[in-house]
Amino acid sequence: MAKAKKQKPTILITNDDSIAAPGIRALYEAVKDLGRIVIVAPDKPQSGMGHAITLGHPLRLQKSDLYPDIEAYSCSGTPVDCVKLAVDKVLHRKPDLCLSGINHGPNHSINVIYSGTMSAAMEAAIESIPAVGFSLMNYGMNADFSAAQHYARRITEKMLKNRLSKHILLNVNIPDFPLSEIKGYKICKQAYAKYQEKFIERKDPGGRKYYWLTGEFLNFDNAKDSDVWALANNYVSIVPVEFDLTDYTVKKRLETLWKDKPNRNVKAVEKKVVKKSMRKSE
Amino acid sequence: MAKAKKQKPTILITNDDSIAAPGIRALYEAVKDLGRIVIVAPDKPQSGMGHAITLGHPLRLQKSDLYPDIEAYSCSGTPVDCVKLAVDKVLHRKPDLCLSGINHGPNHSINVIYSGTMSAAMEAAIESIPAVGFSLMNYGMNADFSAAQHYARRITEKMLKNRLSKHILLNVNIPDFPLSEIKGYKICKQAYAKYQEKFIERKDPGGRKYYWLTGEFLNFDNAKDSDVWALANNYVSIVPVEFDLTDYTVKKRLETLWKDKPNRNVKAVEKKVVKKSMRKSE
Repeated sequence: MAKAKKQKPTILITNDDSIAAPGIRALYEAVKDLGRIVIVAPDKPQSGMGHAITLGHPLRLQKSDLYPDIEAYSCSGTPVDCVKLAVDKVLHRKPDLCLSGINHGPNHSINVIYSGTMSAAMEAAIESIPAVGFSLMNYGMNADFSAAQHYARRITEKMLKNRLSKHILLNVNIPDFPLSEIKGYKICKQAYAKYQEKFIERKDPGGRKYYWLTGEFLNFDNAKDSDVWALANNYVSIVPVEFDLTDYTVKKRLETLWKDKPNRNVKAVEKKVVKKSMRKSE
Repeated sequence: MAKAKKQKPTILITNDDSIAAPGIRALYEAVKDLGRIVIVAPDKPQSGMGHAITLGHPLRLQKSDLYPDIEAYSCSGTPVDCVKLAVDKVLHRKPDLCLSGINHGPNHSINVIYSGTMSAAMEAAIESIPAVGFSLMNYGMNADFSAAQHYARRITEKMLKNRLSKHILLNVNIPDFPLSEIKGYKICKQAYAKYQEKFIERKDPGGRKYYWLTGEFLNFDNAKDSDVWALANNYVSIVPVEFDLTDYTVKKRLETLWKDKPNRNVKAVEKKVVKKSMRKSE
C-alpha cells in the first residue's frame, strides 16, 4: 500500500513593519517551500503597537498583489488584529504555525513587550498556534537578511518537526553580521533592560509644545544566558516566551503577608446564597 | 527633638478610559488624602491599546481643568506614553506609586495583555515604580464604584506601608456588587482563558466589506486560585504580575532538545576576535 502523501502544513506569516516591508518578503522566501504560506500583514507600519487591538472601529482586509503566487492580504489593523482576522476570516481554521517578522530592528529583552512583531506571535500562541517572531538587529530597509533567513528556516523546520507544545512561542533575534560570523544560536532568558526616556520638547508654528519620544537603552542584566549577552557575543538568541504573567514568587509572599480578614457580612451573603440554592432545588 | 514630619508620597494616577472617565475620578476620590496626587491620563478612550507606544509622531500634553486642585494633564498618546511623559516631563522624577484605573470593565485573566490600564501600570513597574491597576466588572459609565473605591484605598494603603519590591505590579479586579456582598480579596493567578473571535462582516455603502471584532470569552481554567474563580465567587482578585516573559520551563527543555552544532566557521571568528584583542593589548 502506498504511503499516504503527508499534507503540507499551513504557515501564517505576519509582521509589524507592513506587508510592503523587505523583512516579511525575506521571511517568505526563506520558508516558502516548507508549507502552504498565507500572509496577513498590516497595510502600514505598526511598530511599537504592542498587543493593541482595534476596538470601536471596523477593520478592512485587502487582497494584496505583492504576493501573486499565494493568498496574501493587507489589513488596516494592528499586528494582533491581523492574526485574529487571518484565523477567523482568511484561513477559517488555525494554521499549524505562525511566523512573524523578520522585523527591521531588535526585539530582545524588554522590547518583547512593546513589539508588534512579538505581540502578533503571542496572539497566535494564546490561540494555541505555535509561533515564532524573528527580528534582525538592523533598522535599515536595505539590511542584509541572509543570515536571518538561514536561522528562520532552521528554526521553522525544527518547529514543524517537533510539536513542542501548542502554546510555544519563541522570540528570535539575529545579530547584524554575515552568517559566517555568527557562532550559532543560544536558548536564552529575557534580559532585564529598559529605556531611559528622554522626551525632546519642541514648539509648533503656533507656539504650542509637543514631545518626541526618545530614549537610551540600558541593560541591567549581566547573566550569560540573557538574550542581550548572546547577541553581543555573535549568537542568535532564542527566548521562549509565556503569556501567563503571574508572578508566582510574589503570589506566595502576598498569600502570607496580605492575609485578608473576611468581610463581616460574609455569613449573611453565604446564607442568602444557600437559601437561593435551596429554593432552586425545591 | 521633634520628629521630622514625614513627606507625603507622590502618587501618579492614570487610566485608559481617558481623563474624563468617571472611573479615574472614583480612584482619585478614594486615595486623594494619601499623598500628593498627580494625574496624567489619555485625552480620549484608549481601551485595548495594550503596551502600545507612540513612535513616528509627537505627543501633546495639556493641563486639565477637570482637576483644578492638583496637577492634572491630558495626553494625546497611549496609556504607556502617559506614564513615560509623566515621569520625564511632569514629575521630573519617579513617583512613589502608580495607580491605574479604575477601569470600566474587567481586566482579569488574559485581558491583562490587551489592557491599556494594566499596560500603563506595567510600564511603571518596568521603570521601578510600584504599581496597581484597578478594574471594575462593569462597563457602564454610571457604574457604582463604591466597593471598588473601598478596595482601591485599602490596597493603596498597603502598598504605601510596605514597599514589597520596586517592580511590584498588581492586577486588581473588583466584582460588580455592593461592598456588603463582597467576601474580601484573594491573591490569585491569572486564569488561562481566551476569546473565541467572531468577526462580524458588513458592507459599506460602496459595497466593500469591513469587519467588527467581537468574541466570546472562554475560561479553560478550573483552578480555585485563579482570578476568574475568585471573581465568580464574590471576591476581589489580586494577581501579582511580572514583565519577565521568559518561559523558564520551556527554556530548560529546549536547552536539551535543541542543542546547537557550533558554526564551522566559529573558530575562525574566534581567532579573529583573539587577534583583535591581542592587538589591543599590545
